[in-house]
Amino acid sequence: MPTASVGVFKIATKGPGDVSGLMAMIVSGAIDPTSILAVLGKTEGNGGVNDFTREYAVAALCAALAPKLGLTPHEVEQRIAFVMSGGTEGVLSPHITVFTRSEVAQRPAGISGKRLSIGMAQTRDFRPEELGRSAQIAETAKAVNAAMSDAGIADPIDVHFVQIKCPLLTSERVEAAAARGNKTATISSYSSMAYSRGASALGVAVALGEVTSDIRDEDVLRRYDLFSKVASTSSGIELMHNVVIVLGNSETSASEFEIGHAVMTDAIDAPAVVSALRSVGLEVGLGVAPQAKAGRELVNIFAKAEASPDGSVRGFRHTMLEDTDISSTRHARAAVGGLIAGLAGTGVVYVSGGAEHQGPAGGGPVAAIARMF
Amino acid sequence: MPTASVGVFKIATKGPGDVSGLMAMIVSGAIDPTSILAVLGKTEGNGGVNDFTREYAVAALCAALAPKLGLTPHEVEQRIAFVMSGGTEGVLSPHITVFTRSEVAQRPAGISGKRLSIGMAQTRDFRPEELGRSAQIAETAKAVNAAMSDAGIADPIDVHFVQIKCPLLTSERVEAAAARGNKTATISSYSSMAYSRGASALGVAVALGEVTSDIRDEDVLRRYDLFSKVASTSSGIELMHNVVIVLGNSETSASEFEIGHAVMTDAIDAPAVVSALRSVGLEVGLGVAPQAKAGRELVNIFAKAEASPDGSVRGFRHTMLEDTDISSTRHARAAVGGLIAGLAGTGVVYVSGGAEHQGPAGGGPVAAIARMF
Amino acid sequence: MPTASVGVFKIATKGPGDVSGLMAMIVSGAIDPTSILAVLGKTEGNGGVNDFTREYAVAALCAALAPKLGLTPHEVEQRIAFVMSGGTEGVLSPHITVFTRSEVAQRPAGISGKRLSIGMAQTRDFRPEELGRSAQIAETAKAVNAAMSDAGIADPIDVHFVQIKCPLLTSERVEAAAARGNKTATISSYSSMAYSRGASALGVAVALGEVTSDIRDEDVLRRYDLFSKVASTSSGIELMHNVVIVLGNSETSASEFEIGHAVMTDAIDAPAVVSALRSVGLEVGLGVAPQAKAGRELVNIFAKAEASPDGSVRGFRHTMLEDTDISSTRHARAAVGGLIAGLAGTGVVYVSGGAEHQGPAGGGPVAAIARMF
Amino acid sequence: MPTASVGVFKIATKGPGDVSGLMAMIVSGAIDPTSILAVLGKTEGNGGVNDFTREYAVAALCAALAPKLGLTPHEVEQRIAFVMSGGTEGVLSPHITVFTRSEVAQRPAGISGKRLSIGMAQTRDFRPEELGRSAQIAETAKAVNAAMSDAGIADPIDVHFVQIKCPLLTSERVEAAAARGNKTATISSYSSMAYSRGASALGVAVALGEVTSDIRDEDVLRRYDLFSKVASTSSGIELMHNVVIVLGNSETSASEFEIGHAVMTDAIDAPAVVSALRSVGLEVGLGVAPQAKAGRELVNIFAKAEASPDGSVRGFRHTMLEDTDISSTRHARAAVGGLIAGLAGTGVVYVSGGAEHQGPAGGGPVAAIARMF
Repeated sequence: MPTASVGVFKIATKGPGDVSGLMAMIVSGAIDPTSILAVLGKTEGNGGVNDFTREYAVAALCAALAPKLGLTPHEVEQRIAFVMSGGTEGVLSPHITVFTRSEVAQRPAGISGKRLSIGMAQTRDFRPEELGRSAQIAETAKAVNAAMSDAGIADPIDVHFVQIKCPLLTSERVEAAAARGNKTATISSYSSMAYSRGASALGVAVALGEVTSDIRDEDVLRRYDLFSKVASTSSGIELMHNVVIVLGNSETSASEFEIGHAVMTDAIDAPAVVSALRSVGLEVGLGVAPQAKAGRELVNIFAKAEASPDGSVRGFRHTMLEDTDISSTRHARAAVGGLIAGLAGTGVVYVSGGAEHQGPAGGGPVAAIARMF
Repeated sequence: MPTASVGVFKIATKGPGDVSGLMAMIVSGAIDPTSILAVLGKTEGNGGVNDFTREYAVAALCAALAPKLGLTPHEVEQRIAFVMSGGTEGVLSPHITVFTRSEVAQRPAGISGKRLSIGMAQTRDFRPEELGRSAQIAETAKAVNAAMSDAGIADPIDVHFVQIKCPLLTSERVEAAAARGNKTATISSYSSMAYSRGASALGVAVALGEVTSDIRDEDVLRRYDLFSKVASTSSGIELMHNVVIVLGNSETSASEFEIGHAVMTDAIDAPAVVSALRSVGLEVGLGVAPQAKAGRELVNIFAKAEASPDGSVRGFRHTMLEDTDISSTRHARAAVGGLIAGLAGTGVVYVSGGAEHQGPAGGGPVAAIARMF
Repeated sequence: MPTASVGVFKIATKGPGDVSGLMAMIVSGAIDPTSILAVLGKTEGNGGVNDFTREYAVAALCAALAPKLGLTPHEVEQRIAFVMSGGTEGVLSPHITVFTRSEVAQRPAGISGKRLSIGMAQTRDFRPEELGRSAQIAETAKAVNAAMSDAGIADPIDVHFVQIKCPLLTSERVEAAAARGNKTATISSYSSMAYSRGASALGVAVALGEVTSDIRDEDVLRRYDLFSKVASTSSGIELMHNVVIVLGNSETSASEFEIGHAVMTDAIDAPAVVSALRSVGLEVGLGVAPQAKAGRELVNIFAKAEASPDGSVRGFRHTMLEDTDISSTRHARAAVGGLIAGLAGTGVVYVSGGAEHQGPAGGGPVAAIARMF
Repeated sequence: MPTASVGVFKIATKGPGDVSGLMAMIVSGAIDPTSILAVLGKTEGNGGVNDFTREYAVAALCAALAPKLGLTPHEVEQRIAFVMSGGTEGVLSPHITVFTRSEVAQRPAGISGKRLSIGMAQTRDFRPEELGRSAQIAETAKAVNAAMSDAGIADPIDVHFVQIKCPLLTSERVEAAAARGNKTATISSYSSMAYSRGASALGVAVALGEVTSDIRDEDVLRRYDLFSKVASTSSGIELMHNVVIVLGNSETSASEFEIGHAVMTDAIDAPAVVSALRSVGLEVGLGVAPQAKAGRELVNIFAKAEASPDGSVRGFRHTMLEDTDISSTRHARAAVGGLIAGLAGTGVVYVSGGAEHQGPAGGGPVAAIARMF
């Protein structure tokens, strides 16, 4: 396995179409465009079915990167994994995180232990009636294994975050399935986002041995005791297959970054956030201790949020699921985003909604990446 | 000054019209209905102009208390101060906090130092064109002083939370002013809520000496360097005057409760929340220390939240003010509610939106009440 | 069959808790409170799961009518059928329509032909798992027959509007079913409103012979070719049974009102609205003819609206079903309300959302009541 | 004056980034890309401050047209006037209307009378503090005159629709003005859209002699008796100047299209819509007469909608201005869109929100373009 140099760059954006920050870093030489493997972004749409800020951001990035890579915008979209999570409710701040990877001859002298590594893979295209069901689970599991190999990670314990981009159903897609005599898991576009996210997360759980592999169609969005502690899945209208990005630590990496994670057991699990930060050597300052240890700084936090499906948090009723004005994913991102931002000291964090089978019901995974210097 | 026994009861509700919890406590004898002075509630509406859950909750409480007090519902509404803050976004959980006060012969043996005290007063009715302007500021300041007296508090340093209920403008009220040849501060109902909250908060600041008294009309919603650290103001359609409730600690109180506060400098100021909890002897457990000291327990937290008017939090852009789908007050309550709930370990906290001149711009006051046992 | 005198009174409201208009008419003698059989209202909530304006309006009406009827508010709610439809989007104007019925000795001399008649009935309470399924269909059909008898109507052709109030699922109700080992038709509260409305409408269709009675559970919200042309169903959180109100014309009625209907085949079916108006002798004036014939005036229009489930209107895409910010029922009420208001010349009309199996897919029934003088 | 051949093409879109319909017509030769003068579109965003579908649609169109025109995307944006109006509430269907113009040697034999003509002009960039004030009014008036000349129209009576694209304020722009010591008309981005639309419309009214030219800053959004009957203005974040497009009929045109207009006096003014259709020889069929006269067909309707600022329609209360969940512009587009779609028989019409000073308060202009064949 060759040694990889993995970079992570967090860049604030002024709008979904803003590529100026990334372009400036390419022009200055800070980022080599040919090394860009994946871009995870938070855009300021509603995060729902009709959130066009995601595809707009991808279109803008592809158009801007195309001349830098000597490719067409469409070829850029095939080459780089773009995962845009819509919804920057509350204090969340729109930004992109750019992951780069390049080969290096050998590890620099000062680096020891496992360091941040990244790998990617993708599934075949799904048919609409496969979304939210066992076919999506099984294909995703295969892709997770492939992405681990790509990352130079053999042991599931070294996997700390698996980001997946997955499809959703539109009226058109539901019709197409019906025309072939097949029923989809749901006829609602909005609900289909949950089904697709859930099945994709279960695919991660299968791949990492977090659950057994005999999950049935009816377990999806029902058996919430089945989940992955590191899966983060986002559905979007622009694709019909799953794109899998594995983030973990590997001895094949010469990165100056490290990743760790914890699991929030519910939406107000502050200790889990603290634990995720501590897993990469960062302390939370609550008015007493300074926030950063010498030689370490926070790059970003990646978390999933959801309204607990039983309608309560620690025994007390929440109203997120019964609000016809604001979707529960927006509520959940705002609340969990507020907590994480408070503990991390910044709203420029990646909190994504819809944590079905990603962490326990009502909770979700939370990963942190730190830079060592 | 007679000695007062002040009680605080936090009661979860199943809906805006649910009075069953309070009624059960009255039936059981835990609460003497004649001692009820004020009720602060969080209801699950949108917190905006057309949030009818507030008046519905008040109507339900008045109808239920009327036979217990031998009064008509209307007389109950005149006797008790009901402040319903709409909006339980994210993890916030609908509830009411009931404040009682009765005279006792003398302080029990075990009580020393200052204890929770409560006082009330109200202004005259305002004309629509006075809302958000100096008349509302001056009248509110007078009422704060009266409420301090009523609470047995002489020193502003002992005031930890001043809750005010204030009017808003409707199309009808704007028209009425126009018909008399007067312009209101704004013609938008939604904006008028901010003006009324802001002027009311400045009235508190004047009364407590936090600012000088020569505030001009044009300073309201402009000079955000002028603010009170303990004001919490909510506007509602159902009244045309301000109702002022002062909460503080007093040697005239024989309460088993204590109140303290801190000021959030921005919406992600976790240390301020910790500080407010510590001010009443409570520790925050972040996975390490247990949350509660022996002999103390949290009753409730009262905080105000807002989207910082400059569009950013610690230098990074937020999107709350430019979201046409969700009002910024809903965003802010969800985010600050998520942070406070995480640190307090419960979503049953009082976080109210619209913190104009209540704490610094983008921040807000946060008070905590603990019970000693 | 005794002769009935049926009255219809449309009263504008200033808010969901406003009962002043009705009270004034009772005080003036225009309405005898003991004759009130049903109240159909449009309230200004979101019409969704968390629309508390409906129950608030009912609570306010019951409290106000109680002393007039010598009953408790709870007894008033049992005696009179209150159907509050939430959502006055666009130009729709909040109001209530009060239906009265009393016996008269015989028909006055001037009245001939069939006149407005009203009848009521209700089903037993449903279990959560029965909602949206055949049990709800069959029980509703029985109640429709009973209500027709009550109205003195034998022939289905004389039935012009059947208003039903039906339950919805809450998290709590879904849990209760699950605890007994039963799955509900859906776990989403919002979706359950559609299931309950749909099954109730199919119950009307069965009763009136519009469809055969062998409808299966899986036909609900799938077989949109099955529908009633006169059903209008609204789901609310406050009950667990169906309340059925039949409106038609009968020779046993001595009313000065007449009702007729048409069916909108889609949401922009202007000719159907015109046809409904003509069915009770009213002409639409489009700048040319005067709107009213001599001796006739419009009292109210009752219509159902929905986003066509195939995502298009006359071949062109609509975006109502894929909008995560505004529920499709709000979109549909606003649009159909705009059309009907334009043709009727007033926004004080009853347009209710969610027309599943009420008229063809994307369309809905539209009834008109005229007064003859 | 040379003779112009003006074309109008209405093209449905599948999403804000969909350019396939236009591209197909270019490829087939139906549209010559070099003749495109302006594109008016309805996109499916919220039509508010954070509606990014508008800029996304423009970006997609510019990127697609660039190779066809041998220009960069940025140059395309300078060359063609793109006006995207966000918001396809209710039955409104996303689409673009493409206007082309090219010179022809002389009028074809069969054409007589005045035919559709189009002209364009633009103002200088505005400073933030000029928006919504007299500077914007005066500059707009100048540009309207220039655009009339460009269209070959001398008499204001021949002007039937003036579409203007105008700026709005962002937090950043407000700050910039404040930094120079200047106050903007409002500090709210959402409100600034209304100010900018209003002042732009008054500029049209000045140019066409509909009002006198001595309008003061304080008349904007106050003196609703001042308005233009043909102005349609949309504000967007992407520009700081006004772009003016004049549509009318001219003898210099050899177009097969004709334009006419009427003025809706309120949001339910059905006769005005009928009148606009009749002005270009189209009949409305309400179940009786066929809709189209021989030799004429509807191309598109262009209308503006707003919630009447006095809170009522024909004496009855609407709730659009007091809804904190849905902005009044969305309500108004949905309602007026429903009415126009019903009368026109299609939801593919251009109804844009925010009709300040565009038609009387609560109403708005409505123009129709027909093709003669």
